Amino acid sequence: MIALLTDFGLQDIYVGVLKGVIQGIAPGIPVADITHAVPRGDVRRGAYMLRQAASYFPRGTVFLGVVDPGVGSHRRAIAIQTARGFFVGPDNGLFTYVTWADPSRVVVQLSNPKRQLSRTSNTFHGRDIFAPAAAHLASGLNILDLGPSVPDPVLLPNPRLEIGPGLIRGEVLHVDHFGNVTTSIGTLGWLGEDRARLDPWIPGLESKATVVPRSARARLGESESLPLHRTFADVRPGQLLAVINSDGHLEIAANQASAGVRLSAAPGMPVALEWG
Amino acid sequence: MIALLTDFGLQDIYVGVLKGVIQGIAPGIPVADITHAVPRGDVRRGAYMLRQAASYFPRGTVFLGVVDPGVGSHRRAIAIQTARGFFVGPDNGLFTYVTWADPSRVVVQLSNPKRQLSRTSNTFHGRDIFAPAAAHLASGLNILDLGPSVPDPVLLPNPRLEIGPGLIRGEVLHVDHFGNVTTSIGTLGWLGEDRARLDPWIPGLESKATVVPRSARARLGESESLPLHRTFADVRPGQLLAVINSDGHLEIAANQASAGVRLSAAPGMPVALEWG
Amino acid sequence: MIALLTDFGLQDIYVGVLKGVIQGIAPGIPVADITHAVPRGDVRRGAYMLRQAASYFPRGTVFLGVVDPGVGSHRRAIAIQTARGFFVGPDNGLFTYVTWADPSRVVVQLSNPKRQLSRTSNTFHGRDIFAPAAAHLASGLNILDLGPSVPDPVLLPNPRLEIGPGLIRGEVLHVDHFGNVTTSIGTLGWLGEDRARLDPWIPGLESKATVVPRSARARLGESESLPLHRTFADVRPGQLLAVINSDGHLEIAANQASAGVRLSAAPGMPVALEWG
Repeated sequence: MIALLTDFGLQDIYVGVLKGVIQGIAPGIPVADITHAVPRGDVRRGAYMLRQAASYFPRGTVFLGVVDPGVGSHRRAIAIQTARGFFVGPDNGLFTYVTWADPSRVVVQLSNPKRQLSRTSNTFHGRDIFAPAAAHLASGLNILDLGPSVPDPVLLPNPRLEIGPGLIRGEVLHVDHFGNVTTSIGTLGWLGEDRARLDPWIPGLESKATVVPRSARARLGESESLPLHRTFADVRPGQLLAVINSDGHLEIAANQASAGVRLSAAPGMPVALEWG
Repeated sequence: MIALLTDFGLQDIYVGVLKGVIQGIAPGIPVADITHAVPRGDVRRGAYMLRQAASYFPRGTVFLGVVDPGVGSHRRAIAIQTARGFFVGPDNGLFTYVTWADPSRVVVQLSNPKRQLSRTSNTFHGRDIFAPAAAHLASGLNILDLGPSVPDPVLLPNPRLEIGPGLIRGEVLHVDHFGNVTTSIGTLGWLGEDRARLDPWIPGLESKATVVPRSARARLGESESLPLHRTFADVRPGQLLAVINSDGHLEIAANQASAGVRLSAAPGMPVALEWG
Repeated sequence: MIALLTDFGLQDIYVGVLKGVIQGIAPGIPVADITHAVPRGDVRRGAYMLRQAASYFPRGTVFLGVVDPGVGSHRRAIAIQTARGFFVGPDNGLFTYVTWADPSRVVVQLSNPKRQLSRTSNTFHGRDIFAPAAAHLASGLNILDLGPSVPDPVLLPNPRLEIGPGLIRGEVLHVDHFGNVTTSIGTLGWLGEDRARLDPWIPGLESKATVVPRSARARLGESESLPLHRTFADVRPGQLLAVINSDGHLEIAANQASAGVRLSAAPGMPVALEWG
């Protein structure tokens, strides 16, 4: 299957056109939208959202990602193969968080004109270059047929994540539709009633696994410190809390209300998890 | 096929993740979005929207509905089989209006861990429990394999609908994208030029079928009373009217304009249909 | 496959219902959304958006287009067959720009009740008449089985496009999600470094092909005149420019910013391309 993530929005015909091009090359292939509401040109947010979603798709899925403020400039167009599947889009770091950890990854430049639309524009590579490549990969084409190997794909810098004794510092990555505030402090999972374990998801920090007691408290910016709970319903409706979210990240939330609005949260704001 | 209705919005990756999970379990199954814009946590609105949509899907469709403010609490996860198809989601009344009328319905609790993702979270049962159950049902699994029978699923209270001589009282259920204001007064259908027939859709009122003359007038809150017409174009552009909408409910509308904005309509506002 | 373009928005269940009806008649047919965000009742904008998208879908695609402010009035329901595929919807000009140029087109009225839902409403022909017709066509039904031939389908008037020596006048057609401002001045393509060629897309003007030098400048309303560039990245971030967009239309844009907001652009505003 092919899964789409873009910053195109749904007001225009651009997403539809990607699907038309795909069906022309790979008729009947299932296509699913991950989201088209990545903030315009925000590569880092797109990279994080793609990481949140990718592991829930079947192995072999072709991910077509287009957050491409540099379209038409000298940035390369690439495809990446990993154990999980394929990633197709601009070489601007959008695939960092889903591909950096796979040592077997293969990265190629999309330079074979036979695998592009016959006339390519300077402003819509999603349609002319990326969608055809994704459809060909989904049809079984060998990735090496798309173009030459790329030894140095662009990688995004790491989000903030500093692990010390009794304190972890991070930042807000995303505020969702429900007002839940996701942070760079992950991957956490409950060990038992009383403790959670943090296995950081950021390159170079993997070895700093840390055990966090249930009594830990989270702080967003200058907010009050919030207790760490198991789920929203552990507090009264309207009340703020910290939870380990369904992706194993620390999240600041409110039961049946918007923590994002209550705390004026925005990507980049500092977050801390403290104990002891 | 599987049809999705949620309050997730389309800004995040949540709807995409449901589709990834479904395709992993039931590859190639057609999946259609009913809507993901149910107001956050508004179970009753979701229940009404699902009722509006369900009868137009093929028999055997699996409806995956997630409006779930109590996720992670003690509310149960359920699947329901009726003559129409299957309904999967939280046990909070979301399926009341599409399942209560079927005496042959089967309701089970989704407690079989083999039919869930291997690690389930406390905050995203749509992904971990409901989507896998829906995909298994669409693949032909017997509903009884998902868990034990539930004798007492949660049901929503009835919307307001009071039928008297020459007068029916109801309430606004929904204001749509066009500003058309749908009410609880249904199901109506034209008998001929001069009369409509009301067969109420609410449990216990089915027997109170009523004939409404064409000369009936509708009133929303304290608004002027509006004549009952056959279609928008029966009045001049911009003018308000009452119609029997395409689902057989009384609707307050305006020709090529928004009745919702003109009348500041909102769910719960009282509506009356009067004659004689 | 079937491709959908409507003004229904995604807040309601209407788009989902179209898909339910389609799957009931043509199980498993791939369905793609072009967009559902055509401004409410804006037939001309819908017609332009459909033209932008249609050529990227496979031949034989069935386009279901519903922008239908006259639903329930005397406007006809039609289907059109061209060399490209099929178009189904209201007879109000929505298909003008994708069908007028095909001399072999066949237009029929959707009057065969056997190809409609058994009960048709006065307010939702998309569900009751258009979706069934589209599904039947996608299943291979002969278009002549849908109803009698229509000799005089409604056509929209041409957008403004006046071609003179050293000057082309047009108008804004659309402002997209990125703030890029598309105009009626098209179809342009680069001949080489220094010149572009305009082959107008409007009936009756096809013969007025014109060569436009690279030094041409564009003006939106009373704005400053803007140089014609190859792509966004040719100017600094935030700077305005004119480009030939990916559909061959003159576009006023800004690199990584919204020209629409900067210039308060709206459909109908005059645009000029000047040189010499």
